[in-house]
Amino acid sequence: MHKKLFIPGPVEVREDVLQKMATPMIGHRSKDASALQRRISDNLRKLFYTKNEILLSTTSGSGLMEGAIRCCTAKRAAVFSVGAFGKRWYEMAISNNVEADLFEIEMGQAIDPAEVDKALSTGKYDLVAVTHNETSTGIMNPIDEIGEVVKKYPEVVFIVDTVSSAAGTKIEVDKCGIDVCITSSQKALGLPPGLAVCTFSQKAKERAEKVPNRGYYLDLLQLYKYIQKKDYQYPSTPSLSHMFALDYQLDNIINKEGLENRFARHLEMAKIVRAWAKKYFDIFPDENHLSNTLTTIANTRNIDVGALNKSLGERGFQLSNGYGGLKDKTFRIAHMADCTVEDVNELLRNIEDILGL
Amino acid sequence: MHKKLFIPGPVEVREDVLQKMATPMIGHRSKDASALQRRISDNLRKLFYTKNEILLSTTSGSGLMEGAIRCCTAKRAAVFSVGAFGKRWYEMAISNNVEADLFEIEMGQAIDPAEVDKALSTGKYDLVAVTHNETSTGIMNPIDEIGEVVKKYPEVVFIVDTVSSAAGTKIEVDKCGIDVCITSSQKALGLPPGLAVCTFSQKAKERAEKVPNRGYYLDLLQLYKYIQKKDYQYPSTPSLSHMFALDYQLDNIINKEGLENRFARHLEMAKIVRAWAKKYFDIFPDENHLSNTLTTIANTRNIDVGALNKSLGERGFQLSNGYGGLKDKTFRIAHMADCTVEDVNELLRNIEDILGL
Repeated sequence: MHKKLFIPGPVEVREDVLQKMATPMIGHRSKDASALQRRISDNLRKLFYTKNEILLSTTSGSGLMEGAIRCCTAKRAAVFSVGAFGKRWYEMAISNNVEADLFEIEMGQAIDPAEVDKALSTGKYDLVAVTHNETSTGIMNPIDEIGEVVKKYPEVVFIVDTVSSAAGTKIEVDKCGIDVCITSSQKALGLPPGLAVCTFSQKAKERAEKVPNRGYYLDLLQLYKYIQKKDYQYPSTPSLSHMFALDYQLDNIINKEGLENRFARHLEMAKIVRAWAKKYFDIFPDENHLSNTLTTIANTRNIDVGALNKSLGERGFQLSNGYGGLKDKTFRIAHMADCTVEDVNELLRNIEDILGL
Repeated sequence: MHKKLFIPGPVEVREDVLQKMATPMIGHRSKDASALQRRISDNLRKLFYTKNEILLSTTSGSGLMEGAIRCCTAKRAAVFSVGAFGKRWYEMAISNNVEADLFEIEMGQAIDPAEVDKALSTGKYDLVAVTHNETSTGIMNPIDEIGEVVKKYPEVVFIVDTVSSAAGTKIEVDKCGIDVCITSSQKALGLPPGLAVCTFSQKAKERAEKVPNRGYYLDLLQLYKYIQKKDYQYPSTPSLSHMFALDYQLDNIINKEGLENRFARHLEMAKIVRAWAKKYFDIFPDENHLSNTLTTIANTRNIDVGALNKSLGERGFQLSNGYGGLKDKTFRIAHMADCTVEDVNELLRNIEDILGL
């Protein structure tokens, strides 16, 4: 039996979007391929509220995250981490010989923009990396405020992992001053995993030009150059299936729903899950910085999360246990992509029924 | 109108295989995901005639090529190039600060194993990289003989790009002594682009353990460790759609046809195209080392290749012009994956008709 996914990616994908994954192939050096990538880029610019170029990468989000921190750090990167995915930025830097410092914030807390200011004021850093939405803890960091801080330091490139938030909440890239804003297909964009996208500012481009040894496949500058020189094409052979599905999803689903409506629906689902969590359990992270796409619930009743998920599985649902050290202490309900208020309510009623709440 | 693809990737994909790309999502940390990756790996081991581990990467073939040359060179790489894709190995090395020398063979010629012997006998190299099937020229290099040479040097890791040949011709990885044998989904495997796979020997693993700064997303050792520790899982979220399709393709199409039958069909298609090329044009590369999956035809009649392809397009077919500097001087017909003898004959009859041959 298929399980409806309430895990923070892969998400449940609409049947019509899945069908676009089965589109017959075209040549990746054809005019049709260029038109496809250009259409996707134009729609993603709207989604990200940006005039910057859009890069596509046939990787998971991690591929573009690594590309960004490697290609855009000439001096030293300041990585602000509020959980597992923040730490991943740092591992990516270190494994590529990129100088970096890790600023770890207590699990369940958000980044304090004043701490970013303090770090950048040392003059040691020319890049700052943050996670917008941390799926391990359910925190959504205040990137608008962090962006205001970063703007004080013209030398600093601002890169943001919005993998689990973009298309589920408003991210105004140009207003925030984000130079590289990364997301991937299998979260609030509502596609299968296998494609990552990012915005790429002129400042990020100029920085990359000064960084030697950017590698090949994850070189953001190479991706950019192919768009410029080959009219929106990709250096190697891209995942055309994901591009067909993304094109359809942006044009026929997301734009038709309307961005503001989409964000409002995500917030509505989040509010339902938060209220439910408060009623029966508790919310794990700082309630001033809650994620709109996923809720991490403190397991105050000490339920057997594995057993709950097994019972849910028999009814055709799946949620997530806590991540890493938070396993069994928390559990997570993702409410993103094309999931509806009715879907969320159906899940919650089933949990209540199983647990006898 | 859909064009039937006779280009060297993406290839024409069977309708039932395309439909598997539309499979609903499952959690990538589930037992079902482990079972899926394990089944794919077992079938790929048969395809590659190897006992070695199989790594999957959500990238094009270039991603794993870069990972291999970066992770497995501790001292210096010898790259033997017979065309555009051979040179790409070298660019990948250089862009990652990996010491490498490029041995360029004249376009249209194959690698002479004696030249490999001469290079390795200097003791300068601990890795040799070759392209098995060079789609720019239509050459298939004698990897069996090169493998025999490499075996004389126990320190040397042997990595081979079989992107456009694996699943279309027999490649006996263990017999050849190949440490990392790479291919990708959109060639003779007959899937859409977006997934790369490779074999990974114990020797390659031990080498990678000695190489620092292997990066993150393209780190072959990281891929290997996840298979070991997480029971055939992937470090980030893989392209499950491609995995569903590859699983089906290996189990229901390739194994049912039979490997030997599949290779024989590819050879038969190649012989038809070669004979046709000799009759009306000429074959571009050295006829002692012809590719079984693609034929590069010398444009001895000085036809307008672009115009031919346009006319073919109106009839629902597409072939490839020559690559890079060989554009218009050659054109290319790929005959791989699930393309049949009837498909090839249909294409050739249409070319004859258009050109009035």
